[in-house]
Amino acid sequence: MATENEFSPKEWSFKGDELLVRSSAVTVRGVLDKLMGNLNPNDPRPTIPLGHGDPSPFPSFRTAPEAENAISDALYSAKFNGYSPSVGTLPARKAVAEHLSRDLPYKLSPDDVYLTSGCTQAIEVILTVLARPNANILLPRPGYPYYEARAIFSNIEFRYFDLLPEKDWEVNLHTVELLADENTVAIVIINPGNPCGNVYKYEHLKKVAETARKLGILVISDEVYYHLAFGKNPFVPMGVFGSIAPVITVGSISKRWIVPGWRIGWLVTNDPNGILKKHGVVDSIIAFLNISSDPATIVQGAIIQVLEKTKEEFFLKIVNLLREAAETCCSKIKEIPCFACPSKPEGALFALVKLDLSLLEDIQDDLDFCLKLSKEESVIVLPGLAVGLKNWLRITYSVEPSALDDGLNRIKAFCLRHAKKQ
Amino acid sequence: MATENEFSPKEWSFKGDELLVRSSAVTVRGVLDKLMGNLNPNDPRPTIPLGHGDPSPFPSFRTAPEAENAISDALYSAKFNGYSPSVGTLPARKAVAEHLSRDLPYKLSPDDVYLTSGCTQAIEVILTVLARPNANILLPRPGYPYYEARAIFSNIEFRYFDLLPEKDWEVNLHTVELLADENTVAIVIINPGNPCGNVYKYEHLKKVAETARKLGILVISDEVYYHLAFGKNPFVPMGVFGSIAPVITVGSISKRWIVPGWRIGWLVTNDPNGILKKHGVVDSIIAFLNISSDPATIVQGAIIQVLEKTKEEFFLKIVNLLREAAETCCSKIKEIPCFACPSKPEGALFALVKLDLSLLEDIQDDLDFCLKLSKEESVIVLPGLAVGLKNWLRITYSVEPSALDDGLNRIKAFCLRHAKKQ
Repeated sequence: MATENEFSPKEWSFKGDELLVRSSAVTVRGVLDKLMGNLNPNDPRPTIPLGHGDPSPFPSFRTAPEAENAISDALYSAKFNGYSPSVGTLPARKAVAEHLSRDLPYKLSPDDVYLTSGCTQAIEVILTVLARPNANILLPRPGYPYYEARAIFSNIEFRYFDLLPEKDWEVNLHTVELLADENTVAIVIINPGNPCGNVYKYEHLKKVAETARKLGILVISDEVYYHLAFGKNPFVPMGVFGSIAPVITVGSISKRWIVPGWRIGWLVTNDPNGILKKHGVVDSIIAFLNISSDPATIVQGAIIQVLEKTKEEFFLKIVNLLREAAETCCSKIKEIPCFACPSKPEGALFALVKLDLSLLEDIQDDLDFCLKLSKEESVIVLPGLAVGLKNWLRITYSVEPSALDDGLNRIKAFCLRHAKKQ
Repeated sequence: MATENEFSPKEWSFKGDELLVRSSAVTVRGVLDKLMGNLNPNDPRPTIPLGHGDPSPFPSFRTAPEAENAISDALYSAKFNGYSPSVGTLPARKAVAEHLSRDLPYKLSPDDVYLTSGCTQAIEVILTVLARPNANILLPRPGYPYYEARAIFSNIEFRYFDLLPEKDWEVNLHTVELLADENTVAIVIINPGNPCGNVYKYEHLKKVAETARKLGILVISDEVYYHLAFGKNPFVPMGVFGSIAPVITVGSISKRWIVPGWRIGWLVTNDPNGILKKHGVVDSIIAFLNISSDPATIVQGAIIQVLEKTKEEFFLKIVNLLREAAETCCSKIKEIPCFACPSKPEGALFALVKLDLSLLEDIQDDLDFCLKLSKEESVIVLPGLAVGLKNWLRITYSVEPSALDDGLNRIKAFCLRHAKKQ
């Protein structure tokens, strides 16, 4: 083989891309990796992961047997080993359209549905499509930082509007109107809420749509936690208001069926007036999917049965588990003086807790709290800064109930140990 | 619900992205859709799809039972329903590293392997990472137009070097040196070849690596058809020459196991000297994967068994099937006066055939040939223009043997019918 000396090598002319490193710096995954790195390897107790929203490893949250059998049937049929059309297979799009139409006042067509590799790819698609010089997008604070990451990558400016803790995390619509200008293209809402654990009322969603119409922007409604609602408000899809302003819904089976690793989701146009088509957004979605990777065809083959055959008992079981876990979480939070939870969680998988640093002795901020908690108690909790809200904590309660009790007790012990002496 | 008149709506401020439409205009899929649209719905005969390289629907090409069982085992273990790390799970990366190391003079580490959603996403990753202002990349002509599509999207200039039909489609290395300048970052080769159906010799690959080193660029080696070689040359991975110039290998199980719909592939750094790491390429790959969607975790869980347990008989059966199909294809081509096949296919799934238009009466060019063939004979063949070689045809022979005979007979009848009268 050739050695260094046989050539007169010039400098290597390729290099990495700093923008990519900048885009990916803001992900939840990065912060969690940092906390995991701070665990004490000598602690004999199991690590309790209350940091990220994936209950799939826990026996109580195992997916429905009908869903597993759907994959097996698709697999052994040998009909889904080939490439799929870039927008998804027609039967699968039809199944998703019918499934989502049950909650809408009109029928979605299969052409409104684009299958994606999880909700993640759906977000990638719409942000890529909306990118143009000087475009800006309105994002919630607190929110889900993947939107920021993709906006940085696609060179879209983002502007934050606040969610109001004292009003069940409703959108501050007044700020939204002040933030928007002629280059604003969309507003993002996440419902049920990540990280807030709230569920928006019908009336509030309608006001969001009316504001979007007034501003001439579309609504991106992230409904990846759809139907995971267990409080006073039922889940209402934003698509209900698609005739007020065009709505792009992004979602997946990841959370409701607890199978994020199956990587199937959707981008749906809720737009009875055909405004997205008229403005070229639909053509751009199709074009981008044409140069993107598709969700696995076997999972597309399975989704028809997954949606049709999963029994109502499964959903009830999961929602009841989450309701009880949220209750457990709230009761424990009330016992901890430095914690406040202004809004009881009613959906998704999270409680958002305000940290009163004045009651703690040697904790600088939320990240410091989480790093020390990881080291001393082997409990992982997400610092609010990762979701745009400094000195708050996002606690995921969707773990095995016994682990949740253990984790909350350790958090309480940690807080008492670090409490300021009176 | 609100009506038009309740608001004073301004113009909608979002719109589609023309760049996306332009990027996706060059895909094989687009051309094939056009041909499919030209089929005669009144032809009672079955359509014979010799246009694209997906043998998975044909019974003779059904994947190995061990591979199907691997997915089922992963599924029912319920261990792979959750999110995976963005680079892929460690056991799966380890399995791929060991699998590919068998053909290399050194051992790959799991850290050299990044799991992707098919080879498609691996190509997306490396082109995104290499994009920077004024960068250019060297692409083969004929080639695989997904590279052009992603280069357009990422704003990378591409420059074509020719593959030489009279020299078994070897790279014209002289042109490569003339094309490259200080902004050239990489050269792409596809081996076994799409669309050429060739397999490169060890010595030629070594020369490609030496040229890359001289120019200070990296080699992107597309080995999605790895080990589908049935002629005089064995398959040699480009990674063998990773110590001459850094090599990024992209590949997948899609073609060798005939499961493109499972969407798992890899990007591998073959770089014993650590040059990619030093130049920030590795960090950028990791960063981009951090904001991208992952291959399904159940398929990552399965790939370990897929790679370990598939029997040699399966690979032999497939390679023999392909060898016989290529023979059938070549014999028939020799019977057709307006066809010439300068190089007998020895790998992948394709024969590349030169069209002698002077012998045909009413055929303008390759696209016209394919459109009329579709309409009159219900046979789909890819016009060379779709892969950069006008007035050639790419014929896929990886279909059920009886369908191949039928299709080739129809093509012959078509050519004789359209032959110029002497």
